[in-house]
Amino acid sequence: MTSLSATRASRRPRKMSSRASATRFDRRLGHILDHATEVFCEKGYEGASMRDLSRATGMSLAGLYYYFESKERLLFLIQKHTFTTILEKLKALLENVTDPEQRIRLFILNHLQYFVSNQQGLKVLSHEDESLKNGLSSEIAGIKREYYRICLELMEDLRRKRGLDFNTRTAVMSLFGMINWIYTWYNPRVDGNAEALAERMGNIFLTGITSGGSGRKNRKQVSELSSRA
Amino acid sequence: MTSLSATRASRRPRKMSSRASATRFDRRLGHILDHATEVFCEKGYEGASMRDLSRATGMSLAGLYYYFESKERLLFLIQKHTFTTILEKLKALLENVTDPEQRIRLFILNHLQYFVSNQQGLKVLSHEDESLKNGLSSEIAGIKREYYRICLELMEDLRRKRGLDFNTRTAVMSLFGMINWIYTWYNPRVDGNAEALAERMGNIFLTGITSGGSGRKNRKQVSELSSRA
Repeated sequence: MTSLSATRASRRPRKMSSRASATRFDRRLGHILDHATEVFCEKGYEGASMRDLSRATGMSLAGLYYYFESKERLLFLIQKHTFTTILEKLKALLENVTDPEQRIRLFILNHLQYFVSNQQGLKVLSHEDESLKNGLSSEIAGIKREYYRICLELMEDLRRKRGLDFNTRTAVMSLFGMINWIYTWYNPRVDGNAEALAERMGNIFLTGITSGGSGRKNRKQVSELSSRA
Repeated sequence: MTSLSATRASRRPRKMSSRASATRFDRRLGHILDHATEVFCEKGYEGASMRDLSRATGMSLAGLYYYFESKERLLFLIQKHTFTTILEKLKALLENVTDPEQRIRLFILNHLQYFVSNQQGLKVLSHEDESLKNGLSSEIAGIKREYYRICLELMEDLRRKRGLDFNTRTAVMSLFGMINWIYTWYNPRVDGNAEALAERMGNIFLTGITSGGSGRKNRKQVSELSSRA
């Protein structure tokens, strides 16, 4: 339990005494956040009580309140931990790669690698997107904006370098839909591992934005068909 | 309030006395379900009380319990009403169209047309996917399976007729992700109407599955890059 004191310390800044204690702390915090994620996933944020969280994490109710203050702060830490981890991994992956298609493939792979092994986390992030208030909410929103901005830049870079013509906002949001929706259906025995899934989704998405062209004609036909029905 | 008696009647089957009363009833039911959807969207299913639902729908608490029995039954009716409507519209649209690409474009258009004007409904359907129990849950699951099966058949039809090679399950689930995720981001002023969005998403998706091919080479490169980081 002692290693958890760093949670309080994070609000009253103090240096970690050693790298080892930071690691022990990270592990313990990660363990608690994992169990809290399970509870939020199963009961929803509204439906979960601090008592449920105490039971699942193995911490006393008093301990939970002392170290985390509230259910909201736990949700905040889950979101912050997740988005920060993904963002750092992504930046490391992109560092030495310049080809714009490969960079988008790495974005997809990084996102799927994290969430294929953490579907509950993805569900909680999607469903409790608006549960945080004010200060906590805006800190998370900032990290998410950075993640979105990186993805948008990857698209704009590809469009510019290849002289393509597609709507980058629709492309980014379509991609987020493809890779976030997996928490509702992904099954490793049927769908393979993250790398295999990233390849298939990358193929659909990248071919989709790099080989386009025949949209206008189809739109006319489709809206005619639609108004006839 | 009188027209609502048909809700009870739906469990003790009785013929509607006239087409006019059915229409009045449908309108009143639709109105109540719309307001209940707003409440579920805002507070979540767990967080919403029958008292909240009474306030939002303008029905007395006693009336709500009398006609709908429970919060769960209201959620069930929202889900059933939504999926049945979408499915019927889709079948009507597909009836006279044989071209496999056009049929997939109609699937996308129909889904977006419904949910672009009903984003709250889409959010409630996504978030409260597992809130129904037993009998109610399995009736909804049946309608959803039919919707999924139609989409899968559209993909298999395209693959067969064009001699293409892609994973139809990944394709269907990627498409569902693209078109369901819109409840988190769609903004009519920025993204245009359902027809414009369906055209852009249809272009990305259909080009993606019909023009593919270079996956294998990219996979090797990407996993090498990923393991280097």
